[in-house]
Amino acid sequence: EHIPYRLKRYTEKEMFRRAEEFYRMMDERRTVRFFSDDAVPLGVVHTLIKTAGTSPSGAHTQPWTYVIVQDVNLKHQIRELVEAEEEINYRKRMSATWVKDLEKLRTTWEKPYLDIAPYLIMVFKQTYGVGPNGERLNHYYSEISISISVGILLAAIQNAGLVTVTSTPLNAGPALRTLLGRPINEKLLLLLPIGYPAHNATVPDLQRKDLKDIMAVM
Amino acid sequence: EHIPYRLKRYTEKEMFRRAEEFYRMMDERRTVRFFSDDAVPLGVVHTLIKTAGTSPSGAHTQPWTYVIVQDVNLKHQIRELVEAEEEINYRKRMSATWVKDLEKLRTTWEKPYLDIAPYLIMVFKQTYGVGPNGERLNHYYSEISISISVGILLAAIQNAGLVTVTSTPLNAGPALRTLLGRPINEKLLLLLPIGYPAHNATVPDLQRKDLKDIMAVM
Ligand SMILES: Cc1cc2nc3c(=O)[nH]c(=O)nc-3n(C[C@H](O)[C@H](O)[C@H](O)COP(=O)(O)O)c2cc1C
Ligand SMILES: Cc1cc2nc3c(=O)[nH]c(=O)nc-3n(C[C@H](O)[C@H](O)[C@H](O)COP(=O)(O)O)c2cc1C
Repeated sequence: EHIPYRLKRYTEKEMFRRAEEFYRMMDERRTVRFFSDDAVPLGVVHTLIKTAGTSPSGAHTQPWTYVIVQDVNLKHQIRELVEAEEEINYRKRMSATWVKDLEKLRTTWEKPYLDIAPYLIMVFKQTYGVGPNGERLNHYYSEISISISVGILLAAIQNAGLVTVTSTPLNAGPALRTLLGRPINEKLLLLLPIGYPAHNATVPDLQRKDLKDIMAVM
Repeated sequence: EHIPYRLKRYTEKEMFRRAEEFYRMMDERRTVRFFSDDAVPLGVVHTLIKTAGTSPSGAHTQPWTYVIVQDVNLKHQIRELVEAEEEINYRKRMSATWVKDLEKLRTTWEKPYLDIAPYLIMVFKQTYGVGPNGERLNHYYSEISISISVGILLAAIQNAGLVTVTSTPLNAGPALRTLLGRPINEKLLLLLPIGYPAHNATVPDLQRKDLKDIMAVM
């Protein structure tokens, strides 16, 4: 029931080099809200999702469904649903502090990238599983597990030279679940448009925390 | 306030190759519970944590603190605290179904790897932030954000040829927070021992779901 595990071991020098190179690649990642409509091969997206599927998960429950939307009309319907909720979120539901905290990003309820990006990856968390005889299966730590899987997906997207917006479509989840015909054990967690950045894409001029502010050694 | 964003664009052929290669690397990742006590340079761990720090986060709040424990006595105290709670978890707190769901992994409350692995990465979620004048700052979606950051960390660990156990020290969080002297806005989310696998390491013989069972295209 247990099998041997082998992993290539690098020299320390090689390990430093690999770690540094991967850091530099990931440090170039930014949330990009301006997309090119250039096509991206669907086969690449398949491989990216397979990569997300290598994630660990509580008790190996793999509580994730990735729905890839490429249909132009469906993308537009998603945009309309998300924007309608976002306008109410910004105007009424989000606290004044929250709206202020977002000012530096210059985000609004308008999301043209939902039409423009070649694919929208709709990330559904399975709050419980369904067994072969219809029985309900517990999914332990499903939100942590699927978010870890998304972290691996973001690394895969960056490695492929593509960009995304890690976004949470506040209050639009149930309508999007219905639109996409997903079962009731699935809850929309994140919406990730994917594609190439627009030629004139810009990003907010943000800084990341220093290592000393996110790490302690004891 | 916005700055231009540029990203190297690969040919489709190159993109396929890179995506496939990254998938193969991540597909070799397994949760390994048998560690070698061989030393790992602390500088490499620094770079891995910097990589985790490139993660996106809700409203750029970066709600994570990574505490690296290398001290032998402290590691042992952590082991004792975790094992004491885990024994009660397995015997009393976890449901019979949960214990049964874990049987295939052959995990128990005994965790010798907490002594053996050269470092324990203690992942603390900042449930709220503290501003320059002591004021409380909202952290939106902090659990999703930090879990995404951990997903990126797992990719960095795999890329460096190291292994970890993505583990949730159920009920030991408050005692570990006190032991490590972390402030009350921080909550222990995960405990990740890190090091080389033992020469005779084994893993449960698990299969991952097929692509068709985790992805739909519309
Ligand atoms: C949120 C989460 C919590 C986990 N908790 C534990 C744990 O407490 N102890 C443990 O040994 N493994 C734990 N695991 C590891 C899973 O059992 C493991 O990922 C799963 O069995 C799949 O195996 P793999 O990671 O080798 O692919 C956890 C994983 C995740 C994502
Ligand atoms: C859980 C989570 C939710 C987010 N929600 C949104 C969102 O709804 N809309 C959006 O434009 N960006 C969203 N973001 C992106 C953040 O604003 C972004 O990661 C942050 O400003 C840091 O910028 P960077 O990703 O370019 O480093 C979200 C990020 C995370 C991790």
